[in-house]
Amino acid sequence: MDLNKIFGERKTVVQVEEGNELAPKFDALGLIPAVTTDYDSGELLMHAYMNAEALFLSITTGEAHYFSRSRQAIWHKGATSGLTQKIRELKIDDDQDCIWLRVDVAGGASCHVGYRSCFYRTVPSGSGITTDAPLELEFTEHEKVFDPEEVYQGAPNPTKL
Amino acid sequence: MDLNKIFGERKTVVQVEEGNELAPKFDALGLIPAVTTDYDSGELLMHAYMNAEALFLSITTGEAHYFSRSRQAIWHKGATSGLTQKIRELKIDDDQDCIWLRVDVAGGASCHVGYRSCFYRTVPSGSGITTDAPLELEFTEHEKVFDPEEVYQGAPNPTKL
Repeated sequence: MDLNKIFGERKTVVQVEEGNELAPKFDALGLIPAVTTDYDSGELLMHAYMNAEALFLSITTGEAHYFSRSRQAIWHKGATSGLTQKIRELKIDDDQDCIWLRVDVAGGASCHVGYRSCFYRTVPSGSGITTDAPLELEFTEHEKVFDPEEVYQGAPNPTKL
Repeated sequence: MDLNKIFGERKTVVQVEEGNELAPKFDALGLIPAVTTDYDSGELLMHAYMNAEALFLSITTGEAHYFSRSRQAIWHKGATSGLTQKIRELKIDDDQDCIWLRVDVAGGASCHVGYRSCFYRTVPSGSGITTDAPLELEFTEHEKVFDPEEVYQGAPNPTKL
């Protein structure tokens, strides 16, 4: 199977939106955002990026592959931590510039900080909010699933300021 | 309330990841990706972007606001179509460079093509895939919730090739 042949050419808006041919749009850096949710619970686990090769590998292996912007390399999720993501369903959006992965997670965690989901904090919202100080986040996960120092052992933290 | 005061300064990785101060990261274009799911079903509805003002408006009004890259303007979702999104929960990820909105959708649709979700097509995946032609998408929604030509009446289609 050839990476360059499974992606169709983007010819018209109607073809991209209403057609049944995979014709993904990669941005100026060659990336497409990927949103990953837990197949059973629907919880949003993470938001990352794929390049064409990562999308090809995700499609053809059934395991989530991303492109690490901090390492500038293909990132087989779970290769270091063991927390692989098995793809149960892979979807694409209307204009084909975003991927949705519905996955089962080996080990039950997807966040490099050690939590189940990367989205472990809530931002207060609504018309009652009145403050002129930085808003205070509320933690919705209270225990880490794993200890990142043990699992990643000295690997650089991908978070950038 | 001052837009410039509710967002904290990003000082350290530990503060950003483990702290309880909202300190979002906007990219070189001033944008942060936003993932929107249906509060009840967990379905991924759409993936869009916010600038600081759109995030501020989402937080302070409780209704989803995005930044339209095609129109280069604040986009109060549903202002044209009536299909507003009421925010039930607003979350942020580990490195605070992605927003998750859990919403109730007035009118039951979030996609400008007329479908409930923007993700109305599945990409085949798994180790059985063997083809050298563009992959064939499968529609998982079969009826549009609304007629976009009627609702948007001549407004330009945001999809870009």
